[in-house]
Amino acid sequence: MKAKPKMPKVTISRLSAYLRCLHRLEEEGEGYTSSKGIAERLRLNPGQVRKDLSYFGRFGKRGKGYNIERLRNEIIRILGIDREWNAIVVGIGSLGGALARYGGFAKHGFKIVGLFDVNPDKIGAEYQSIKVRHIDEMADFIRENDIKLAIVCVPAESAQNTVDRLVEAGVSGILNFAPTNVLARGNRNTYIRNVDLAMELEYLTYFISAR
Amino acid sequence: MKAKPKMPKVTISRLSAYLRCLHRLEEEGEGYTSSKGIAERLRLNPGQVRKDLSYFGRFGKRGKGYNIERLRNEIIRILGIDREWNAIVVGIGSLGGALARYGGFAKHGFKIVGLFDVNPDKIGAEYQSIKVRHIDEMADFIRENDIKLAIVCVPAESAQNTVDRLVEAGVSGILNFAPTNVLARGNRNTYIRNVDLAMELEYLTYFISAR
Repeated sequence: MKAKPKMPKVTISRLSAYLRCLHRLEEEGEGYTSSKGIAERLRLNPGQVRKDLSYFGRFGKRGKGYNIERLRNEIIRILGIDREWNAIVVGIGSLGGALARYGGFAKHGFKIVGLFDVNPDKIGAEYQSIKVRHIDEMADFIRENDIKLAIVCVPAESAQNTVDRLVEAGVSGILNFAPTNVLARGNRNTYIRNVDLAMELEYLTYFISAR
Repeated sequence: MKAKPKMPKVTISRLSAYLRCLHRLEEEGEGYTSSKGIAERLRLNPGQVRKDLSYFGRFGKRGKGYNIERLRNEIIRILGIDREWNAIVVGIGSLGGALARYGGFAKHGFKIVGLFDVNPDKIGAEYQSIKVRHIDEMADFIRENDIKLAIVCVPAESAQNTVDRLVEAGVSGILNFAPTNVLARGNRNTYIRNVDLAMELEYLTYFISAR
């Protein structure tokens, strides 16, 4: 397997958007596209798109542009999504429960295979035929099923402790929805993405109030 | 009121993270900070942070760094969150229902004041004492309450139509969770942020599989 090109984080964060765009172009029957075409659809700067795609080597043919299928497959490989990923959700409150049922994950190859909570009222409840287990069973479950991804929806005050337990059990990627920044203490091989939905609204209010 | 500095989108998208970081520093009793200090906490490039903050003018004093309170207030002003914002949620399925109850919005000054759906079984249901109304009442509600922000959680196939109705009624900022890219057709003053939760997982799998 070819090595992955070393890319800036901001390029990595745009790869999924390029991928969605390439899928749509394919659905529309296109075979080739240009950085300008992608930039227009995603409302990005064409120079930026060209620079991002340059990490993929010479896919762009003069006059013809990028071969959509090849570029798509390369992005899929680089994002590591040329396989399915199993994930667990920790904290089955309203957001955790919604994410347990969220169809958008499965559509992109992420399968929720375990749900965990501390609340006795929630243990045993089912979401898409997955039973909620007690968090004390989590470490064994992670090891037995070789789980690498976890989605954390616990309250802010339990977030760091939850993350510590996940890291200890061997999880390498954590999507944290708890409204607090958490760290993978003592493990440089665990990656955390803090998702703050209010930030997305703040991005919008910038533009609305800038008018 | 001072005009807002013209910033690149990528800088704007980092302002909320700087703001959260400055809040934490203040809570810890700090009065001043440096671009290096902020960069370390957020794991960003210090040069990037310095460049982003340079749009705010000369807050950084040689040897002393940035006055946290002043910088924080300036970011709050620029993000337009020196006031409360009312928002509505459209599509009260599992994700919409979870967001209707999500505490993270209120904490940052975003108040959910209206909920809309088409399903007769959902009309009249209450989330945090807000009743779900039929989507046909949405346009009047938006106009009467001068709503500028909407969170869209409808199925993919109804997303564009929902956005068209929101734009028509005068909403200027839309956070779209429907798993499809939507456009503010015919209105250049409406801003849309498409949130794709699977993308966040893909960012993690990049790093996990790059090891």
